[in-house]
Amino acid sequence: MDDVPAAGRGDDAALDGLLRKEGSAFDAGAVRALVAGVLAAPPARDAEAWMRLVVAQPSPALKAALATLAEGMRATRAEQPPAAAERLMRLRAELVRRKLAGFIVPRADEHQGEYVPECAQRLAWLTGFTGSAGLAIVLPNVAAVFVDGRYTLQVRAEVDAALYAARHVTDEPPGEWIAATLKPGEALGYDPRLHTLGEVERYRVAAEKAGGRLVPVDDNPLDAAWTDRPPQPLAPVVPHPLSFAGESADAKRQSLTALLTAVPVTAAVLTAPDSIAWLLNIRGGDVSHTPLPLSFAILYADAAVDLFIDRRKLAPELAAHLGNAVRILPSEDFGPALTRLGAAQARVQVDPATASSWVFERLMTAGAAIHRAADPCLLPKARKNAVELAGTREAHRRDGAALTRFLAWLASAAADGNLGEIAASDHLAALRAEGEHFRDLSFPTISGAGPNGAIVHYRASPRSERRLAPGSLYLVDSGAQYLDGTTDVTRTVAIGAPSAEMRDRFTRVLKGHIALARCRFPQGTTGSQLDTLARRALWEIGLDYDHGTGHGVGSYLAVHEGPQRIAKVPNTQPLLPGMIVSDEPGYYKTGAYGIRIENLVVVTPVAGGGERELLGFETLTLAPIDRVLVDAALLDGEEIAWLDAYHARVRTELSPLVDGDTAAWLADATRPLGQMSRQ
Amino acid sequence: MDDVPAAGRGDDAALDGLLRKEGSAFDAGAVRALVAGVLAAPPARDAEAWMRLVVAQPSPALKAALATLAEGMRATRAEQPPAAAERLMRLRAELVRRKLAGFIVPRADEHQGEYVPECAQRLAWLTGFTGSAGLAIVLPNVAAVFVDGRYTLQVRAEVDAALYAARHVTDEPPGEWIAATLKPGEALGYDPRLHTLGEVERYRVAAEKAGGRLVPVDDNPLDAAWTDRPPQPLAPVVPHPLSFAGESADAKRQSLTALLTAVPVTAAVLTAPDSIAWLLNIRGGDVSHTPLPLSFAILYADAAVDLFIDRRKLAPELAAHLGNAVRILPSEDFGPALTRLGAAQARVQVDPATASSWVFERLMTAGAAIHRAADPCLLPKARKNAVELAGTREAHRRDGAALTRFLAWLASAAADGNLGEIAASDHLAALRAEGEHFRDLSFPTISGAGPNGAIVHYRASPRSERRLAPGSLYLVDSGAQYLDGTTDVTRTVAIGAPSAEMRDRFTRVLKGHIALARCRFPQGTTGSQLDTLARRALWEIGLDYDHGTGHGVGSYLAVHEGPQRIAKVPNTQPLLPGMIVSDEPGYYKTGAYGIRIENLVVVTPVAGGGERELLGFETLTLAPIDRVLVDAALLDGEEIAWLDAYHARVRTELSPLVDGDTAAWLADATRPLGQMSRQ
Repeated sequence: MDDVPAAGRGDDAALDGLLRKEGSAFDAGAVRALVAGVLAAPPARDAEAWMRLVVAQPSPALKAALATLAEGMRATRAEQPPAAAERLMRLRAELVRRKLAGFIVPRADEHQGEYVPECAQRLAWLTGFTGSAGLAIVLPNVAAVFVDGRYTLQVRAEVDAALYAARHVTDEPPGEWIAATLKPGEALGYDPRLHTLGEVERYRVAAEKAGGRLVPVDDNPLDAAWTDRPPQPLAPVVPHPLSFAGESADAKRQSLTALLTAVPVTAAVLTAPDSIAWLLNIRGGDVSHTPLPLSFAILYADAAVDLFIDRRKLAPELAAHLGNAVRILPSEDFGPALTRLGAAQARVQVDPATASSWVFERLMTAGAAIHRAADPCLLPKARKNAVELAGTREAHRRDGAALTRFLAWLASAAADGNLGEIAASDHLAALRAEGEHFRDLSFPTISGAGPNGAIVHYRASPRSERRLAPGSLYLVDSGAQYLDGTTDVTRTVAIGAPSAEMRDRFTRVLKGHIALARCRFPQGTTGSQLDTLARRALWEIGLDYDHGTGHGVGSYLAVHEGPQRIAKVPNTQPLLPGMIVSDEPGYYKTGAYGIRIENLVVVTPVAGGGERELLGFETLTLAPIDRVLVDAALLDGEEIAWLDAYHARVRTELSPLVDGDTAAWLADATRPLGQMSRQ
Repeated sequence: MDDVPAAGRGDDAALDGLLRKEGSAFDAGAVRALVAGVLAAPPARDAEAWMRLVVAQPSPALKAALATLAEGMRATRAEQPPAAAERLMRLRAELVRRKLAGFIVPRADEHQGEYVPECAQRLAWLTGFTGSAGLAIVLPNVAAVFVDGRYTLQVRAEVDAALYAARHVTDEPPGEWIAATLKPGEALGYDPRLHTLGEVERYRVAAEKAGGRLVPVDDNPLDAAWTDRPPQPLAPVVPHPLSFAGESADAKRQSLTALLTAVPVTAAVLTAPDSIAWLLNIRGGDVSHTPLPLSFAILYADAAVDLFIDRRKLAPELAAHLGNAVRILPSEDFGPALTRLGAAQARVQVDPATASSWVFERLMTAGAAIHRAADPCLLPKARKNAVELAGTREAHRRDGAALTRFLAWLASAAADGNLGEIAASDHLAALRAEGEHFRDLSFPTISGAGPNGAIVHYRASPRSERRLAPGSLYLVDSGAQYLDGTTDVTRTVAIGAPSAEMRDRFTRVLKGHIALARCRFPQGTTGSQLDTLARRALWEIGLDYDHGTGHGVGSYLAVHEGPQRIAKVPNTQPLLPGMIVSDEPGYYKTGAYGIRIENLVVVTPVAGGGERELLGFETLTLAPIDRVLVDAALLDGEEIAWLDAYHARVRTELSPLVDGDTAAWLADATRPLGQMSRQ
């Protein structure tokens, strides 16, 4: 018998035969390349979904062959990367080859987004730092990693201090470090596809202050050093049905082009994959937790779209879904298309906040006139339509039922003090996954017991996790991606009896949460204007929290989206009806406990106003808030009424969706504040 | 007897004799030029103060001669200006001469400040519009005046609609009008000394959109058309004593140059007269209500200062006060000094918010490197030192006593319904003028009865004024310049019995005022973050007010100063201890009444915080708030406690400073909310 492994080249002939027979455009070699891309994407819920990219309806035999191939490739793939010192040495060798003294390695990819595929995790590959924001700068004899306050502990744990100095990105900004460290005459390289214009400008000023130069590079030296770099991910891109999207891609394109014509511009460059997903009513799976189809697009004022994307990842039905007005072009054509716009002396709209400096340079060099303005999809994407809102309400019921089942389970499961953070979040994820339309979590669950709850962006690992101990607080921040909506909710639960201080702090956080949830404000008000309402009760006694109060949330899209935001940082975008934002004040006592209460709310018109049109919030999230942690003496009558009414609604809406035991627990957990427990 | 008028040239010989005899550097001709400048400044409180500019100690005979000369010149000065159509025609003729199609006429002068001397009131001369913000654009066949929402009524009353279209500056911005109205190939002129870089950039984009050009002009065509334009004002510039300033000019210069050296820059250009006044501890009188010495300065990193100013207006003791480190140069030398900085390839700090585009162009053309940063005086000027704070507390007691005497008088004077707005504000001004260290009002008093109170920037005229009628509200917003502090206070008073609606609205405004006055906030908090606290009670029922909640206030300087501000508009300047701001929410019902409650408060550290250093406000203003207008049922216990405590303090501090009748009235006006009147 032939002993060549199933994934070996020896099977290619058999696979080729199957592929030909079923009419696939792929041969075995092409399938191998495709599978490499599939494996570079996060694992899909439907492990066979990618097979439809090979042929629309693969036979059981082909499926089996493809599964065997993928399994084999996955098994041979997990090589140990070289050690950090070796990686840094390789990069420096590439720099020498290119006559560069140094190089800037950002966390961002070409889309400047929060979620980055494996192949673009350059900062993590080089330095080991896995946080969601950061930057490394490598010079001949020194290197530094810059992170923000969330990651000062993590960077120490993940990055070799002998190789990289760890710096606080705002207290010791990269520009100052460059100005002080780069030597006169030295060239500091950067990849213009990975930085915004504003970043490049800051680094340029710093390099010139040092007497050096900032130099864009065409071929990224880190990519050359990263010899086992994964390919671009290839997760299937599928239509997002009208029954969830609520507005056809055709209608969206038409209304946007009216805006472009009014500016006027010939075209708008779209570099944010979630904008492209929204505009074309498509979803992908190239990064974790957000159904992004990584791609670029150009929207023309005549409503045509050029979509730059790897055609191999398009599901068979996608061409028909996109229609004639959307031209599908290879990713490599994006640059030439920008050049063509320039050659035509077109006026082109580009968003300096999200487009890379490479896009600007390419357009300007080619002769285009640039109109700097926000991505035109941002605002309509943020304002959910009636179908999206109906969907998100449904998704929140399902999500609330899962979370409530979890909380009811937790009440007994955590009683003996042996439950761990990971087991808890695994159980919650399993309950969520049972929900209709569930596709993924919307971000890695934050499951923090005791002191771990005080780490704002905590992620439990077997090394870090703690037991949920009596007398402590447990903070769980989680959410899911459903086809009809994206959820994000945080609850803080007392394990056993809480201290008076814990109850005081929790109640102050709750007062902030309620103040924001209840507030009414005139049209034109921004999230920044409302932020203080959520902090005031903490400020009173000299406390605060070091994160924003609310972020926008997509509709089966990114759990963090703009342009609206509720934060101290000024934001000039008025809150508009249909925008979803989180309401999540918190309090964190380092080494002791963390508190956060988060619901999603949607901006809605409020009737009965006076002279001004008023807006307010409708709460979407449905899950009990731990009454044990509420000190009713700190609440005024209106706050108590809000909490009781919210709990009554949670009980009414969720009881029919949960089992009898959970319903009984829920009835007790949501009884009015003044009422004694019947349990 | 000789019948030549006293002001006639015939007396020059006699005056020359006197001047020679007393050792003046002036001859009669020079005195005439000086007097023209003196008359171009607002009238001084001490009508003879200017005479010290002629000779340090003029004899009674010289004083009499100078007074006669000034009187005569004042009498012959008030010519009727040509009609508006004639003025516009003259400007257009100057434009044709310069081959310009159009010209932009801003309200601002070369200092980009709020207060503009008569000779720089170009917008008012041309169009008749006298508001504190606006812009005209003149083209061959059309012209437009752009004003903000405060002035939409006023512009209709003051400007001939046959000559100028009136436009709303944000709804129909000048840029759009230029883009739509300028013809291809046409040149639109502007005076680069009167615009910031940002303005110029906007107009340039607009002109180019129209296919035209934006062209800077060296000689302002409007100034050529304005044949009877007054000269630059020449009010005496005097030292501001250390007993009021609290820090010597020498110490201020030294601490600023430490900042400049740290940037590093060779020099900072100062174009804001209040910054120069603060830095050098000097005060002038070139514009109304703010003791500004109009001038420019350059502060060098070695702590030397070049002061560009008309030497004739310096009081005799000023040279010694300024000392050797301050070089006094003629105003005309400012441009050449910028060129010299450029020639030396200096790095120069310039504030793009206040410096004109001319300053930037001049520096850049000459070769200077420009560091764009805020005027370095802004922040230290805003943070009052202990001496300034002690002074302002004194000034507020004096000011509060005058206002309380006024309010007590008003209670009877307004009873018959015949008191007019102007008589009321005249009486208040007379009471204030009796106070120690009084120098001027700090702005034209807003004295608004009934519907006039709803006009936010109302200024009573004999044509507009109303009687204070029973059943109406009277709003009075006023303040003074004392040597030891600047005040600004608004009270709203019920004339007779108020309606329930008036009391509801007043109480909501009061709730906002108290919420801001009482709030505690962590270091780093900006005024923008606090603004919402002042609006929330109005928002609840769909009401709001269309102005900021608080502005910075100077110390015997501008009643409006930055960089801090409490407003919806994002402001990134954290509130810092020592900053004075107003707390002035309001509500305005067009055609009916206006309500505003304004105190000045100073940012102070608050003891007893938790983890964060806390700040709060100390209220400076002392005057009763009309209890008749307070609906106690709308206030919570803490709000009532605040008002009662404030009133108790007002009573304690002011009673010793007022006459017996006023004290009796004050005791009643400041009794606790629950307590019945004994009157």
